[in-house]
Amino acid sequence: MYDLVIKNGTIVTAADTYSAEIGIKDGKIATIGTGLEASDTIDATGKLVLPGGIEAHCHIAQESATGGMTADDYRSGSISAAFGGNSCFVPFAAQHRNMGVIETLDLYDSRAQGASVIDYGYHLIVADPTEKVLAEELPEAFRRGVTSFKVFMTYDLMKIDDRQFLDILSIAKENGALTMVHAENSGMIAWMSERLVEAGHTQPRYHAVSHPALAESEAINRAISLAKLVDAPLLIVHVSTPEGAALVSDARMAGAKIFGETCAQYLFLTRDDLDRPGMEGAKFMCSPPLRDSATQEALWRHLQAGTFSVFSSDHAPYRFDESGKLAKGPDATFKQIANGMPGIALRLPLLFSEGVAKGRITLQQFAALSASNAAKLYGLSSKGSIAIGMDADIAIWDPKESRTVKVEDQHDNMDYTPFEGWTVTGWPVTVLTRGARVIDGGALVAEPGHGQYVARDKIDLTGYPGHRAAELDPATNFGARIMPETRS
Amino acid sequence: MYDLVIKNGTIVTAADTYSAEIGIKDGKIATIGTGLEASDTIDATGKLVLPGGIEAHCHIAQESATGGMTADDYRSGSISAAFGGNSCFVPFAAQHRNMGVIETLDLYDSRAQGASVIDYGYHLIVADPTEKVLAEELPEAFRRGVTSFKVFMTYDLMKIDDRQFLDILSIAKENGALTMVHAENSGMIAWMSERLVEAGHTQPRYHAVSHPALAESEAINRAISLAKLVDAPLLIVHVSTPEGAALVSDARMAGAKIFGETCAQYLFLTRDDLDRPGMEGAKFMCSPPLRDSATQEALWRHLQAGTFSVFSSDHAPYRFDESGKLAKGPDATFKQIANGMPGIALRLPLLFSEGVAKGRITLQQFAALSASNAAKLYGLSSKGSIAIGMDADIAIWDPKESRTVKVEDQHDNMDYTPFEGWTVTGWPVTVLTRGARVIDGGALVAEPGHGQYVARDKIDLTGYPGHRAAELDPATNFGARIMPETRS
Amino acid sequence: MYDLVIKNGTIVTAADTYSAEIGIKDGKIATIGTGLEASDTIDATGKLVLPGGIEAHCHIAQESATGGMTADDYRSGSISAAFGGNSCFVPFAAQHRNMGVIETLDLYDSRAQGASVIDYGYHLIVADPTEKVLAEELPEAFRRGVTSFKVFMTYDLMKIDDRQFLDILSIAKENGALTMVHAENSGMIAWMSERLVEAGHTQPRYHAVSHPALAESEAINRAISLAKLVDAPLLIVHVSTPEGAALVSDARMAGAKIFGETCAQYLFLTRDDLDRPGMEGAKFMCSPPLRDSATQEALWRHLQAGTFSVFSSDHAPYRFDESGKLAKGPDATFKQIANGMPGIALRLPLLFSEGVAKGRITLQQFAALSASNAAKLYGLSSKGSIAIGMDADIAIWDPKESRTVKVEDQHDNMDYTPFEGWTVTGWPVTVLTRGARVIDGGALVAEPGHGQYVARDKIDLTGYPGHRAAELDPATNFGARIMPETRS
Amino acid sequence: MYDLVIKNGTIVTAADTYSAEIGIKDGKIATIGTGLEASDTIDATGKLVLPGGIEAHCHIAQESATGGMTADDYRSGSISAAFGGNSCFVPFAAQHRNMGVIETLDLYDSRAQGASVIDYGYHLIVADPTEKVLAEELPEAFRRGVTSFKVFMTYDLMKIDDRQFLDILSIAKENGALTMVHAENSGMIAWMSERLVEAGHTQPRYHAVSHPALAESEAINRAISLAKLVDAPLLIVHVSTPEGAALVSDARMAGAKIFGETCAQYLFLTRDDLDRPGMEGAKFMCSPPLRDSATQEALWRHLQAGTFSVFSSDHAPYRFDESGKLAKGPDATFKQIANGMPGIALRLPLLFSEGVAKGRITLQQFAALSASNAAKLYGLSSKGSIAIGMDADIAIWDPKESRTVKVEDQHDNMDYTPFEGWTVTGWPVTVLTRGARVIDGGALVAEPGHGQYVARDKIDLTGYPGHRAAELDPATNFGARIMPETRS
Repeated sequence: MYDLVIKNGTIVTAADTYSAEIGIKDGKIATIGTGLEASDTIDATGKLVLPGGIEAHCHIAQESATGGMTADDYRSGSISAAFGGNSCFVPFAAQHRNMGVIETLDLYDSRAQGASVIDYGYHLIVADPTEKVLAEELPEAFRRGVTSFKVFMTYDLMKIDDRQFLDILSIAKENGALTMVHAENSGMIAWMSERLVEAGHTQPRYHAVSHPALAESEAINRAISLAKLVDAPLLIVHVSTPEGAALVSDARMAGAKIFGETCAQYLFLTRDDLDRPGMEGAKFMCSPPLRDSATQEALWRHLQAGTFSVFSSDHAPYRFDESGKLAKGPDATFKQIANGMPGIALRLPLLFSEGVAKGRITLQQFAALSASNAAKLYGLSSKGSIAIGMDADIAIWDPKESRTVKVEDQHDNMDYTPFEGWTVTGWPVTVLTRGARVIDGGALVAEPGHGQYVARDKIDLTGYPGHRAAELDPATNFGARIMPETRS
Repeated sequence: MYDLVIKNGTIVTAADTYSAEIGIKDGKIATIGTGLEASDTIDATGKLVLPGGIEAHCHIAQESATGGMTADDYRSGSISAAFGGNSCFVPFAAQHRNMGVIETLDLYDSRAQGASVIDYGYHLIVADPTEKVLAEELPEAFRRGVTSFKVFMTYDLMKIDDRQFLDILSIAKENGALTMVHAENSGMIAWMSERLVEAGHTQPRYHAVSHPALAESEAINRAISLAKLVDAPLLIVHVSTPEGAALVSDARMAGAKIFGETCAQYLFLTRDDLDRPGMEGAKFMCSPPLRDSATQEALWRHLQAGTFSVFSSDHAPYRFDESGKLAKGPDATFKQIANGMPGIALRLPLLFSEGVAKGRITLQQFAALSASNAAKLYGLSSKGSIAIGMDADIAIWDPKESRTVKVEDQHDNMDYTPFEGWTVTGWPVTVLTRGARVIDGGALVAEPGHGQYVARDKIDLTGYPGHRAAELDPATNFGARIMPETRS
Repeated sequence: MYDLVIKNGTIVTAADTYSAEIGIKDGKIATIGTGLEASDTIDATGKLVLPGGIEAHCHIAQESATGGMTADDYRSGSISAAFGGNSCFVPFAAQHRNMGVIETLDLYDSRAQGASVIDYGYHLIVADPTEKVLAEELPEAFRRGVTSFKVFMTYDLMKIDDRQFLDILSIAKENGALTMVHAENSGMIAWMSERLVEAGHTQPRYHAVSHPALAESEAINRAISLAKLVDAPLLIVHVSTPEGAALVSDARMAGAKIFGETCAQYLFLTRDDLDRPGMEGAKFMCSPPLRDSATQEALWRHLQAGTFSVFSSDHAPYRFDESGKLAKGPDATFKQIANGMPGIALRLPLLFSEGVAKGRITLQQFAALSASNAAKLYGLSSKGSIAIGMDADIAIWDPKESRTVKVEDQHDNMDYTPFEGWTVTGWPVTVLTRGARVIDGGALVAEPGHGQYVARDKIDLTGYPGHRAAELDPATNFGARIMPETRS
Repeated sequence: MYDLVIKNGTIVTAADTYSAEIGIKDGKIATIGTGLEASDTIDATGKLVLPGGIEAHCHIAQESATGGMTADDYRSGSISAAFGGNSCFVPFAAQHRNMGVIETLDLYDSRAQGASVIDYGYHLIVADPTEKVLAEELPEAFRRGVTSFKVFMTYDLMKIDDRQFLDILSIAKENGALTMVHAENSGMIAWMSERLVEAGHTQPRYHAVSHPALAESEAINRAISLAKLVDAPLLIVHVSTPEGAALVSDARMAGAKIFGETCAQYLFLTRDDLDRPGMEGAKFMCSPPLRDSATQEALWRHLQAGTFSVFSSDHAPYRFDESGKLAKGPDATFKQIANGMPGIALRLPLLFSEGVAKGRITLQQFAALSASNAAKLYGLSSKGSIAIGMDADIAIWDPKESRTVKVEDQHDNMDYTPFEGWTVTGWPVTVLTRGARVIDGGALVAEPGHGQYVARDKIDLTGYPGHRAAELDPATNFGARIMPETRS
């Protein structure tokens, strides 16, 4: 007797598509089969039953180095994510200069606990890698299950230099953590920005000019070189150029442990939107910036080919008012406008619509990109697939439902969406986290606090090109490696 | 109430590893869960429960263009395959010149029916693409479920020229079939061989000299160019060089529909074995030939990175006696010695031992390479994974069992194995085809004829780099695409 | 006291530009300096004094395999070449099937002797490499100073297969000869042509469609692979695609002895001209065909970077009447129209105008591409530069003269030029061969027979990437290597 | 009547090799021919008469940022250069922080004037690009004929950041100057060094470990990216890795104005020499460090293929005593030992011996690499070739002379040479600067002060891949462009 059975649906995993019922007990997937009995049933006739999405790049309740706060907190952010088909998310906990890392994690714990409707973890942004941080606090963070550290190569108050980058890569590797990097060349951007502003080119569109593709490809190459030097795994987040994607792909083939991520906006938008009159273009400002349609095609190819292990939203919610984009007034230059755009509720509907429904990717690729890959890469061992013993994190999609995107359906604290008016096919109608409904028939049914913190595992590089793990002692090691619940 | 339940095992698919029971009914996987009841039970304690292997490159009951016959027929070949962890195989049906294609298929049907202990299909070798063959017989073969056609760029009596290759690629594409190619430059091999023999270099080791890496990379480049011209999918079989693998990988990234296969011998053996005294080297002769250890490392990287969709044995059983390798006497030159080596029983144990147990690949990659990828690529829609509704084709592996390879354990009709004396860790102890035991506890328990012919589906290129399938009408098309059983 | 002094000009070589006089005696350059005295003087005030051009790819008095003859013989061809700034040319002597090679050379000697106004040699086309040709006749041709052999990978009556190609490369290498190749994939062209004609696409423009870029890049890759197998030098003639040029460039960097040539039409024309109404497009048909403007840009880059050692006209004069292009009538399909276009008089004026006058190349590059490189590559040791002891083969250019191209100024036997109406800046006003004026002030002043046959030297690969010549014995070898006159 | 005639020699230029006499008048080459008369004659029987070498990368009378001074001043440095076959050299004038650029040039003028026996110019090292330096002083330096600026990406007291690099590239481009860069990643070197020293790995050999190939290739890629951003020409000095060389070559083919230099030590030495016992390895320490023999082979290929426009010594004379390498005592770590090695007298003999005499390069390549290329790239318009009107800067080589290298034959102020005991074939026996003997029959015959400062021209990018100069007005511009003496 199960707590809940999902009936009549078509189950989709990263490997398979098939018809069966799912029996859930104690928040876990207990049985997959037919004729299952339960007190509670979801009828998924005509629906696809997918692993609940994992949003692994979003800014929630995060203040910038100069004090501004994102519009979304863990309550609104998690609700929006859930409406977008996600059962779990991993926002950033951002260390700023002169803050400790553990202090930072404690701060974010206080923001997340009791607020989130879906499960969560943190990537730790490291902006001040003091000796103490490196020697004591990063290992401590790792022990708390924060197994991914992010660094910035640009932004004056966040960026680290190459030597600090090596320190962090080295410590991360020792602990089994994954380093993530925002890769853009700081000097190029500063030099370009200065000249553009001097010349009176202050409108939002010049933000894209000031962040040339060369700034990204240079920084990605540098980041990869640093990772190769210490043979550490590294994820390049929000790759926005074909050149950058090719660097990731080539490095992998050559045996470096390099991973890539791209984001919805780089596949679906172009910099043409920055040309909108007045400050309207500011709604489309992000870093790296939107590129052109040839770039979109190339990034799709890389997505299909597996260059990108992770596909994210980079949800960075700054409202189009004085609290966000317009904080510095209607005459602000592009240097003073907050970077980033919202999208946590649309990442998966857009990927489904443009990817699956238009025949670019398979349902298996969709499952992998929406959840399975992130679960594996980030050590979310009990999540990301539909298999016995896994958390019953499930998203039920109606592949036939067509929707027009409206800001009020985002359920975030934002006053705009860059995708306003788009039509998408396919929609997540029901979302479960650990077997409990969060979204049901398009309505929020979970309470803040339903979401729990998830301590994550270390990264496993087995099977990566050129990698050869320590030989296994089958008598003792197999179980440890393959059983999610054995993570200590 | 199931027909059979596999208990206490650790299930492995291309996506997941988890503990659960499998309930089988009517030859299909009916339920995955716990507490399943059946009249018949397999206790898989300490074992891995994997999709039954699919051997997709082997020569069984096949005569050469000059009349010689392989040592294995469908009985012995299928038995050996089953002992090696395979639930299904796809040997070749070889058209020779002046034979019809349908005539060829009928001939192979007569050889396979009632003989095989595991399920089977055929790849059709096309050596004489007459107008009738192209216009009528290849489409008819496709309708019979023979959805892959193989061509040779070398071997005087088999090879087709570039123009014929285009004809076949074009017809295959129209029908949704996959073309496969043995890619080596015929002229280079003939020129080198002539000079070597003239110079008295007739020993087996000169076979490898006469098939230089350039002969493979040239032919692969040419084959890819031809496929690109008509935008047809193409699989390069038995890639043996880093240059060839890179051509496959690069073509894919550029949006051509190019697939690659490599074989066990290229990962595990080197041409040093050809130097064995006298005719002993002949046991290690195959085409393309064995290369060196640097090549092995590069091919492993490509295997890890996904360049190769298929990993096969190229089982080509010619005995080391007058019926096979020594047919032309002990003084035969390398030109007169049959090419190929056996290995159908060892493909998977070797990959498990050198790949999984030594930490080079994950269990997921093993499942994909042993079964799932071949099932998808070759249209074996009901096979290749462990999921509800799929054929209960299952291999149960003991990951702790260590064995020393002996020819008598191969269960084929061969008198040698090139891997004699190797020690492997991990062994398939039980193998099911459609829910019935073929191998049980290391013994053959199925009768010849248990294996059935499997009509295969057309190739699905959705999700391939650069490919965009026709947009789906979710109302009608989803079901057709994703339900294995709906294949007509 | 010199026979002739050129005064007041600006001398240009592949290395330098400087003002000086040239004193000529006995047909050789005797002195370069000032205040030289002679009975005969040319005043080159305001002019550039360059090495006389060497046209190394042209079809003169050559019949096709089916009997048609080029419109130009050695008289008209050499006159047109001289008007175009050339002091020397190297047409083809074409063996056809069932002809001997020596017989072929004798035939061309009979056509050239007493007819040419400039010096000449032959490249030997090898279409029937019988054992006798390989073993006896090619070495004999080499001893006659025919040190370059050309082969075709397409054209039914000319093409050789890969094995024959290896034979020729091997024999050429042994003798120190250079092999040249027309590289296009024959099967692709035949397959495409057949389908195009069947579909009624018979106009000239479909000639370009039937010769896709893939046909060139595939064949170039194959040719390079064959050359690498035997480590023989190879020149790819008339490279028309960026892909082909990159193959040449990459192979060179990797240490293969691969050279490239491109032709005027690929830099200056595009396939748009093939779209002209009716048969007009036929005037622009050549093989490989004209491509697009992006290709032009890429080929310019390769020309600038040194990928192409030789820049030629591929002058192939077929009149736009029943003797040439229209032989098969006004309704002929593109398969029946003779391939090729005239241009021997315009190669250098176009390169000067578009290259030097428009700032794309330096005068040094112009000197190298017009004469010096061809002299070195093809063993014309006494020609190709302005230095003491060299043949006084000189072209005096007026860099300021602007001309509109007209067919009647070509001085060939053709009735059209594809460059009709073009305006060019820079014109060769005076041309000397061995110190005697051939063209003087724009008029022909030499008699047929002034031109002499030039026996050529073997190819010298010293300094080529990866090449290491036999160590020199400075005591004995320096002189031999560096003195043109010591060639035996 | 000439001032001096060189008789009976074999003249070698970047284009040609031929026998002739050279008549010199007023320091210029006046005539090349035969039968020339002069009061003064050099008999060059059996000798090669080459353009006098131009050494374009050497540290002379240069103090480091911390005050140490090179062992060689303009007197000893120029004498050693002359003995090594050079007629001209271009050392560095090094700005340090808080120094002005004009102040720097004045300082170096005071060091060079009256001291040098050969002509000289300066590359300006820019270490402190203040606003005044950028806006006023660099243009002023350019007007003084200092048309190349060098920057460092490493060395704490010299390095500039990416933004400053862009400033300098941009100013250089505006003025027509060439930027040069020492490209190594500072952070990698510091991080590696710290760990090595901490681990007690302080010997000279660890210097090479602390400067990994990745540090060079990363920095070269970054430097090229910055140059591409502002479309400015850039020369990567002392490239020491195949990866770096490939970046230069690829960037050029893609149309970026990137030039490369390599140095003698990278072709002729390996890091094995760093393993010599005790401090002996310090003699072989330079940055970037020596690599391995596979690197040597690759760099030779790039030298042959033209990747490197300049081949230099990077003569950095620090004695093996307390004034130089041992300043910090016999227990100094590799971090405290001065970097660099001497070689100004051996650059050309080594290149001749290993390059020309061993058949790797032609005499033309030798002339280009020893003098002609540097003259063109660095705007030494009156030098670098043997042509009428050029400065009579000539080196007469005896190709048969074999010498064993000894430190006392270097004629510098050093107490060791890394090439001690090498045998070389080919030696410069006589060297002229502006027609006057500096070295004659192996003896110094010029007085300090014979050498004059040479104001250099701006860089000319015509003919560079992708470059298209402003269209020339032949009526007015030709003369200006091609006449060296017209430089204002």
